[in-house]
Amino acid sequence: MAVYTDITEAELRAFLEPYDIGELLSYKGIAEGVENSNFLMHTEKGSFILTLYEKRVDRNDLPFFLGLMEHLAESGLTCPLPVHRRDGIVLGELAGRPAAVITFLEGMWPRRPTPDHCREVGKVAAMLHLSGRGFDRSRKNALSVRAWRPLWNQSAARADEVEPGLSREVEADLERLEENWPDGLPSGVIHADLFPDNVFFLGETLSGVIDFYFACNDLFAYDVAVCLNAWCFERDGAFNMTKGLALLSGYQSVRPVTAAEAEALPMLAHGAALRFFLTRLYDWLNVPDGAMVVKKDPMEYLRYMRFHRNIGSAAEYGLRQSGAESH
Amino acid sequence: MAVYTDITEAELRAFLEPYDIGELLSYKGIAEGVENSNFLMHTEKGSFILTLYEKRVDRNDLPFFLGLMEHLAESGLTCPLPVHRRDGIVLGELAGRPAAVITFLEGMWPRRPTPDHCREVGKVAAMLHLSGRGFDRSRKNALSVRAWRPLWNQSAARADEVEPGLSREVEADLERLEENWPDGLPSGVIHADLFPDNVFFLGETLSGVIDFYFACNDLFAYDVAVCLNAWCFERDGAFNMTKGLALLSGYQSVRPVTAAEAEALPMLAHGAALRFFLTRLYDWLNVPDGAMVVKKDPMEYLRYMRFHRNIGSAAEYGLRQSGAESH
Repeated sequence: MAVYTDITEAELRAFLEPYDIGELLSYKGIAEGVENSNFLMHTEKGSFILTLYEKRVDRNDLPFFLGLMEHLAESGLTCPLPVHRRDGIVLGELAGRPAAVITFLEGMWPRRPTPDHCREVGKVAAMLHLSGRGFDRSRKNALSVRAWRPLWNQSAARADEVEPGLSREVEADLERLEENWPDGLPSGVIHADLFPDNVFFLGETLSGVIDFYFACNDLFAYDVAVCLNAWCFERDGAFNMTKGLALLSGYQSVRPVTAAEAEALPMLAHGAALRFFLTRLYDWLNVPDGAMVVKKDPMEYLRYMRFHRNIGSAAEYGLRQSGAESH
Repeated sequence: MAVYTDITEAELRAFLEPYDIGELLSYKGIAEGVENSNFLMHTEKGSFILTLYEKRVDRNDLPFFLGLMEHLAESGLTCPLPVHRRDGIVLGELAGRPAAVITFLEGMWPRRPTPDHCREVGKVAAMLHLSGRGFDRSRKNALSVRAWRPLWNQSAARADEVEPGLSREVEADLERLEENWPDGLPSGVIHADLFPDNVFFLGETLSGVIDFYFACNDLFAYDVAVCLNAWCFERDGAFNMTKGLALLSGYQSVRPVTAAEAEALPMLAHGAALRFFLTRLYDWLNVPDGAMVVKKDPMEYLRYMRFHRNIGSAAEYGLRQSGAESH
């Protein structure tokens, strides 16, 4: 939920002048997206999203994000397409911020994902992994295993305020993950933030994937691990095996996982939970109240960490291995 | 800026079932409206606003608000129109809240109003006052002069936290206004909240008035006084006489003010400034940070109160009286 920057009609009109999208009819700040300011614009030619990139996004990364959306859309994955100005440029500046116009995708994100949604998101994650192979840019994962300790160090001293003993518990997890983090698994472009509010459906059909602003190059199976955390837990903290099975079989129907990926999945799921726990904990402790950032409860992800710690094999998530795969 | 309540697609579809607005394609929480949750919906038949009325709105008032919009739209004033269900009903319930579907108006509200905007808003206020005469419901102004002292009593003890001496200053204003508040002036339906973010323009043309959730029966000239405060001050706190002149002449081109209204205008403008000062002060002191309510600075309106206190006649706002009017 975020509109950090408001804009005047005059500055918006000046910004839109080089675009071929017709006369501006309205623009409304929308309560979606956590990191940026988003407006839903109506013009004579249809609906568009205007995104102003706020300070948490490194502007050097924007050509990667926008280029990736374009590459994926060309590969047939339904995602928003950056709109080119007449001079070919896709990235401008508005209200002192980098800004882009993106096509609007109809569809609704599932507030209560079903196993059918999970199957579709599994499929689209795999399609994204395969489609990303032809993309010629790359971006390191700024929130990978190596980034967790510096992030943790900014919260560690105050972690026990949130729950007594938390500091020691997270420290132990972090050491375990740093020592055992898998290496050499299949990797490429991943979405890295494929939460339900980033996946739209029209009826049962997946109509689009949005918000590529954490996309990066990392292990494919880590992306699957992010999805398991984001889609397959119930509100009471229980892992829903039916959803896990649907998500993983959807994924495997497009890209079968290797034996090494399957073996690493519990460790990756544990790490993915820690990654979201750490950013949430940081915001919880450091972002002032009323700063128009929705602070999500870090404890939700602590519960997931505790769950993954005790998983013996990926079969417990619902992974069914076909056996022979090992590429 | 307000989305207090999120809704699932399933409950929204069930809510929309009795409407003839076509298949739902998307819905986005929008950052407009202070008191309610608003969603911009796209359906096969176009764009609509879905409003969920939150607890600050008395549901007994909703038939007045929705009926008024319908009445005004029929009179030719461009305002959103509540959409009827097949059974004729306009007010339903969604997520435990009263909810209505309203037609979507294209247009943009002026972040930096010009004298031309002020003239148009003056005209539309007068049109609204004339059009409201045929409306068969009425609603007392819940924030009229008699409501100010009870409101003030909830903030008075802590007012000096905001500025030393504030308590005594407001107390004196309140007494003066209570003693001298005009009576017997022309009255009828007023908007009572005609701020720039409630008035849309397409180019130079006023394309709509929205947000009738403070509308009530009160003095017409009080509505003009609200507009003077909302439209004619610059960011540095200076009153812009050119804008005042434009607003008042726009108003008078549709409905000339009476001599008694002209005489009362400084008192009404002072009172209107106090009314917005008091609600802002209350929120400032009582609404917790991070409650997703944008708390507006009450001191802006304190400056306006100080300005109006020293106004001798409505001519100082830019009012040009034609002389003979006295009906």
